[in-house]
Amino acid sequence: MTTFDLSITDELLSTTRAVRKRLDLERPVEPSVIRECLDLSQQAPTGSNRQGWRWVVVTDVGKRKALADLYRKGVGDYLVQAKQAAEKQGAVQDARVFDSAQYLAERMQDVPVHVIPCIEAGHIAADAPRRAWIGLGGSIFPAIWSFQLALRARGLGSCLTTLHLAYEDDAAELLGIPENMVQMALLPVGYTKGTDFKPAKRGPVDDIIHWEGWQG
Amino acid sequence: MTTFDLSITDELLSTTRAVRKRLDLERPVEPSVIRECLDLSQQAPTGSNRQGWRWVVVTDVGKRKALADLYRKGVGDYLVQAKQAAEKQGAVQDARVFDSAQYLAERMQDVPVHVIPCIEAGHIAADAPRRAWIGLGGSIFPAIWSFQLALRARGLGSCLTTLHLAYEDDAAELLGIPENMVQMALLPVGYTKGTDFKPAKRGPVDDIIHWEGWQG
Repeated sequence: MTTFDLSITDELLSTTRAVRKRLDLERPVEPSVIRECLDLSQQAPTGSNRQGWRWVVVTDVGKRKALADLYRKGVGDYLVQAKQAAEKQGAVQDARVFDSAQYLAERMQDVPVHVIPCIEAGHIAADAPRRAWIGLGGSIFPAIWSFQLALRARGLGSCLTTLHLAYEDDAAELLGIPENMVQMALLPVGYTKGTDFKPAKRGPVDDIIHWEGWQG
Repeated sequence: MTTFDLSITDELLSTTRAVRKRLDLERPVEPSVIRECLDLSQQAPTGSNRQGWRWVVVTDVGKRKALADLYRKGVGDYLVQAKQAAEKQGAVQDARVFDSAQYLAERMQDVPVHVIPCIEAGHIAADAPRRAWIGLGGSIFPAIWSFQLALRARGLGSCLTTLHLAYEDDAAELLGIPENMVQMALLPVGYTKGTDFKPAKRGPVDDIIHWEGWQG
């Protein structure tokens, strides 16, 4: 009989935040902690138990600089404009998120570790329907989130970003990633400055649940 | 200073399995536990903090029967053929997964709760590039996995399936899901028969990590 201490499991699930401003850019990250968290991530499920995941882990200064440049190219004006739009609408939380994302974009090269999760997709045609790409995501995002949760439990933080994917081919060339591998994200990883993260403000859960059908 | 007991966090991350044969089909699931786990799932990150998630939770017998029929239509011969192919290749673990998936497919209607996570996608064009759908997945699969982890911590199990998506429109009609909402999965949810799940057999983590680039 396995029983879990919910005060711990729920703390983990409710305080693993997208960390941007509180990543410690000075403190090095041991390869062993990345390895340990990726080992845990392997326990997440994959469609048809395919386990097609691969992780490129970059600490090299020149390569981080190049990835950061691709990320910023992907970001473009998006974050600045989104922040202005959010401010105009009085969406304070959103404006803060975009401001924090812009802060991270400017310092991406300084985050000690960049992690790019990839997944083998040789079995999916380029013109496959939407659901094929959604299914592919379902075979790696749980592992990515497990990786992030495992990091959090060890005093590290990360942030799931996808804006560099507009320049995925350049990143593949930079890192020698084969053609049959699809990049899913770019996660900057580092120790966090402090570990006292709080749950985010969210709306009432009843607003997002539809019992028995959309109309309830 | 928040510190986590790693024996608990790692147990959660390494023993939350895709549960198929060990879902308790007799024991009812309280709506309150679903609600609690979905509340926790809301703490997962989303792109641009969009939080476009909605969850359709179905316990109605007739609707579960209809969803199970759609799921089986999506499954078709796939699982039986995949199992045979795996057996032929001597892939014992894979054969067991496909056998277990077939077992679940036959009993899908009997699983007490069906949960369909959806996400608002009105901002994405139908012919958007692959990365748009991947990014969309990145905004809900972490929440789905958090939901599954929260269930596990409470003695319940689930399984992330996507095969009904081939008949997503029929499911949308059945449940009244609006056109701007994309269905991401169908999760059968129930208490598990026993809670003593073990980590799955996985290969060496070093086989899936590429330090500094693909060639290492």
